[in-house]
Amino acid sequence: MSDAGEIEEDRVLLRVSGQKVTGTLMQPDVPVPGFLFVHGWGGDQGEDIAQAEALTRLGCVCFTFDLRGHAGSDAERDGVTRQDGLEDVLAAYDQLASHPLVQTEGIGVIGTSYGGYLSALLTAHRPVRWLALRVPALYPDSEWDTPKARLDKEVVRRYRQEPQDEGNDRALSACAAFRGDALLVSSEHDEQIPREASVSYQAAFRNARSFSHRTILGATHAMRDEGHQRIYTRMLTGWIEDMVKSSRVAG
Amino acid sequence: MSDAGEIEEDRVLLRVSGQKVTGTLMQPDVPVPGFLFVHGWGGDQGEDIAQAEALTRLGCVCFTFDLRGHAGSDAERDGVTRQDGLEDVLAAYDQLASHPLVQTEGIGVIGTSYGGYLSALLTAHRPVRWLALRVPALYPDSEWDTPKARLDKEVVRRYRQEPQDEGNDRALSACAAFRGDALLVSSEHDEQIPREASVSYQAAFRNARSFSHRTILGATHAMRDEGHQRIYTRMLTGWIEDMVKSSRVAG
Repeated sequence: MSDAGEIEEDRVLLRVSGQKVTGTLMQPDVPVPGFLFVHGWGGDQGEDIAQAEALTRLGCVCFTFDLRGHAGSDAERDGVTRQDGLEDVLAAYDQLASHPLVQTEGIGVIGTSYGGYLSALLTAHRPVRWLALRVPALYPDSEWDTPKARLDKEVVRRYRQEPQDEGNDRALSACAAFRGDALLVSSEHDEQIPREASVSYQAAFRNARSFSHRTILGATHAMRDEGHQRIYTRMLTGWIEDMVKSSRVAG
Repeated sequence: MSDAGEIEEDRVLLRVSGQKVTGTLMQPDVPVPGFLFVHGWGGDQGEDIAQAEALTRLGCVCFTFDLRGHAGSDAERDGVTRQDGLEDVLAAYDQLASHPLVQTEGIGVIGTSYGGYLSALLTAHRPVRWLALRVPALYPDSEWDTPKARLDKEVVRRYRQEPQDEGNDRALSACAAFRGDALLVSSEHDEQIPREASVSYQAAFRNARSFSHRTILGATHAMRDEGHQRIYTRMLTGWIEDMVKSSRVAG
């Protein structure tokens, strides 16, 4: 965060015609935190722009993208599997991690609904320090290679209504292994993700360095209401400021 | 400058298993300006720390260093020539230019006295967008390879008291070819650099994109007075903010 003037200072030794020249490099505090945004099923990166801009203004580098089968993609939405989605998220993560201002120790992921599910899965494959999941979805592990659009909706609905643990759920298993800071944001009137699913996520995050669960009152799953959007943006940026600051104090 | 939230936004196209994934990278406005500081004869990089910190707080990357024969160096001061000094400055410039946040189109150089003379010479060899010279020294081109400490002081004194032009002066010739923005800062009570030398510099900067000449009232050449130092720091940071902003507007 650009806390009005944090400075990093490094000694540099140059050799000039065999002679030693001692220098000092001063730069704004770097690396900066990097954040990857993963949108929900049927959405696109446009959903995440407001939050990404807010975090960039705090001095972070942000990466949003359209999942395969959505928006800028030429794949058929009905054909993409969860494995395809996970591969897209991995590629997007690697793109962000290759940025010269970003280091893997300082990467956060912010996922919504299906994108939250994929974000949880990502943490099993790449270093993630901060994980914010808004209304994350849950799916049975079975039918992993069935296109997501062709999963039996009734089976999925029932799965979400029962308590689940990491024993046979890849996403919850990744959450149980997650050691970073986690934020879970629910919508009070979520018509797709029942309370049981949030409870399963909350229970799974038992090894997280810190865990916070917030509910946005009156909000629906898609949360199109601008007032709710603003509440979420404030919640997210406040949480990230706190987390980044405390990670600095911790060194 | 971190103008509380300038954002750079770039489209990124990823290929994942032969599929197209469209992303957007948002980052704080980069590259950032880079500034090289060149201290005076008999001084060291400690002289420049206050100004370097002030510019780093504005979001710039800064590099200060000790010239060969000074402070951290193991060379004998009495043996170093102007050519040695120029080579040190070139190496320090190249070090700054290699920084991932800096591009050569956005490098400024800030030199004091002998360091101002070397900074002017540097502009003939490397791209410099902003050049700030405080009480820059002048020397005859002759005896180029004589150690600086062994130059005839009386010859140098007389050279500075007469109007000089770029016809046979490497430093003034570099200033005449300089197309960036230039700031010349004089001390009212300079006991080493007479008014004629400043006038020669001012005349030489006739091709600069912009040129400003300021005099710090009551100041001596070394300007040890803290009040004068603060005036200079404010002058320098204000000038650089203006220059960087107008270069952004100009694209």
